[in-house]
Amino acid sequence: MKGYGEFDFIDSVREMFRAVPDNGFEGIGDDCSVLPIGGDEALVFTSDMLNEGVHFLTERSSAYQIGYKSLMVNISDVAAMGATPVATLLSLALPKERFGEWSKEFMRGYYEASKRYNVKLVGGDTTKSDTGVCISVTAIGRVAMGAIKRRSAAKVGDVIAVTGKLGASAVGLRDVLNGKTETENAKIHLMPEVQIAEGSWLGKQGAVHAMCDISDGIASDLQHIVDESRVSAVIVERSLPIAEGATLEDALCGGEDYRLLLTVEESLADDLSKRFEQEFGTPLYSIGRVVKPNYDVYQIGIEQEDGKVLYSSFGWGGYHHF
Amino acid sequence: MKGYGEFDFIDSVREMFRAVPDNGFEGIGDDCSVLPIGGDEALVFTSDMLNEGVHFLTERSSAYQIGYKSLMVNISDVAAMGATPVATLLSLALPKERFGEWSKEFMRGYYEASKRYNVKLVGGDTTKSDTGVCISVTAIGRVAMGAIKRRSAAKVGDVIAVTGKLGASAVGLRDVLNGKTETENAKIHLMPEVQIAEGSWLGKQGAVHAMCDISDGIASDLQHIVDESRVSAVIVERSLPIAEGATLEDALCGGEDYRLLLTVEESLADDLSKRFEQEFGTPLYSIGRVVKPNYDVYQIGIEQEDGKVLYSSFGWGGYHHF
Repeated sequence: MKGYGEFDFIDSVREMFRAVPDNGFEGIGDDCSVLPIGGDEALVFTSDMLNEGVHFLTERSSAYQIGYKSLMVNISDVAAMGATPVATLLSLALPKERFGEWSKEFMRGYYEASKRYNVKLVGGDTTKSDTGVCISVTAIGRVAMGAIKRRSAAKVGDVIAVTGKLGASAVGLRDVLNGKTETENAKIHLMPEVQIAEGSWLGKQGAVHAMCDISDGIASDLQHIVDESRVSAVIVERSLPIAEGATLEDALCGGEDYRLLLTVEESLADDLSKRFEQEFGTPLYSIGRVVKPNYDVYQIGIEQEDGKVLYSSFGWGGYHHF
Repeated sequence: MKGYGEFDFIDSVREMFRAVPDNGFEGIGDDCSVLPIGGDEALVFTSDMLNEGVHFLTERSSAYQIGYKSLMVNISDVAAMGATPVATLLSLALPKERFGEWSKEFMRGYYEASKRYNVKLVGGDTTKSDTGVCISVTAIGRVAMGAIKRRSAAKVGDVIAVTGKLGASAVGLRDVLNGKTETENAKIHLMPEVQIAEGSWLGKQGAVHAMCDISDGIASDLQHIVDESRVSAVIVERSLPIAEGATLEDALCGGEDYRLLLTVEESLADDLSKRFEQEFGTPLYSIGRVVKPNYDVYQIGIEQEDGKVLYSSFGWGGYHHF
């Protein structure tokens, strides 16, 4: 489970459920949970909820865009495990005035995104809402056991890499809030493309240790990796691939970039980078390195132009709804 | 998918997704969809959404009761397939004032229900809501391929049976709306018990053909069976096990009874009934029979005291949110 920053609540829930048998499930708390199904195969599962007024504004996003994005952000978590999305279940709570045209356009967007990656809709629920639109998507992915990438697998010495430029979605969100819904960045924010083929390809690379998707900003998403791998990390400021028009803070904390964040065995990083670029035509950006933690404090430092590393002096916490 | 009665919308969505490959999934549109995973085993999947003001009132139900019920109604769909629930994903949208005590009590109820049936919580999401509470649960079940019971498997001549008395939840809902939240029936409505062991046991019985759970009232749930099996059905009015205090309409259309509705090979019905009672200490009630449809119209008739069968003369449609 993940969410709005009430990590104490989430931890207490996980603790509470310790008394219930796992029934074969692993990796609870990662981007997805994992169920090995035999024959070296596993299924992965993830759920996301999108709420009107919190995750989207019906005045600023079309129903089509909201449908499209609802599917995309969910299967991004599947790709982040090295898995291929195969199916979703969709539950929709709709105010009366959203039935009819709005719900049809929503489904058209959801369908276009699903069709693009051959993801079948296999269940769900529709219900009335007395208030706003509430959308819940559960995605199911399939993966070879050996290709599963977990947040907890980063090793000291690893190179930290990202699969694309950062901060465009944050710029796009500002555009949208200013009423400019047609800019290039606004489109990236409203209808994000996710990296399904990249996730699946990176899953198969033994050189890749830990992986997750960048949904809350790397300041927050990398923190999950260092916490769960019990390491620290240094980001080299001048290496960050900042999207045009974005600030350093957008790139670190903007959220919703839906690129992949990974750590790579150092001696294999250059080779992986070359092969990634050959495969996808876009670079794999090295942005830093995994380092030994001090006194079991797992933290992220920023290496500045002068070579100095600043730890903990910044209040970045990723994107929070609260 | 199922829902509030907008079956046209649901049909159009199913039609839309015909162009996307099934990826191994079957039975889309039943209580659960089914994914065979090899070795004669399958997983089943279902999602439900519960919305404040529509499915529950926070003034009338405690957070604990809402949590308990959210899990129960979902795993009832799993039991209805003959499967055993193994895990859920839970997404929660909460207004600010529902964090803290309310959310803890909700989770305590959800946990108690999960623990009771050894269902692990393996993922989910928490998010802010600007309006009311919205709850989405996806349940995963496990079943032997040969034990899966589908709505489409009813055969002409089958006996129709239910696993318990009907209408108590409808009486309980009236009690709750009248402020009497402590009556026996109110408790049945607020914290329904579901028939996990019964579903799993009935799944293993070859005598059982079709099965579903009674969530919308048998008038509606049996209609799904007759539609998908391309048969008609006659309910014998005097055979209906009506709960104390309930009316005929409560029993047929009240909804939320969460008993199981099944059709049984006629020659094996008496034996099954005996063994069910031995196993669970409660009767399996025969309430009617599956009959040949007239002119491909799949309908439900009621056989009255005088032996006359009335078709289509009643406006029962099960429980609708709209």
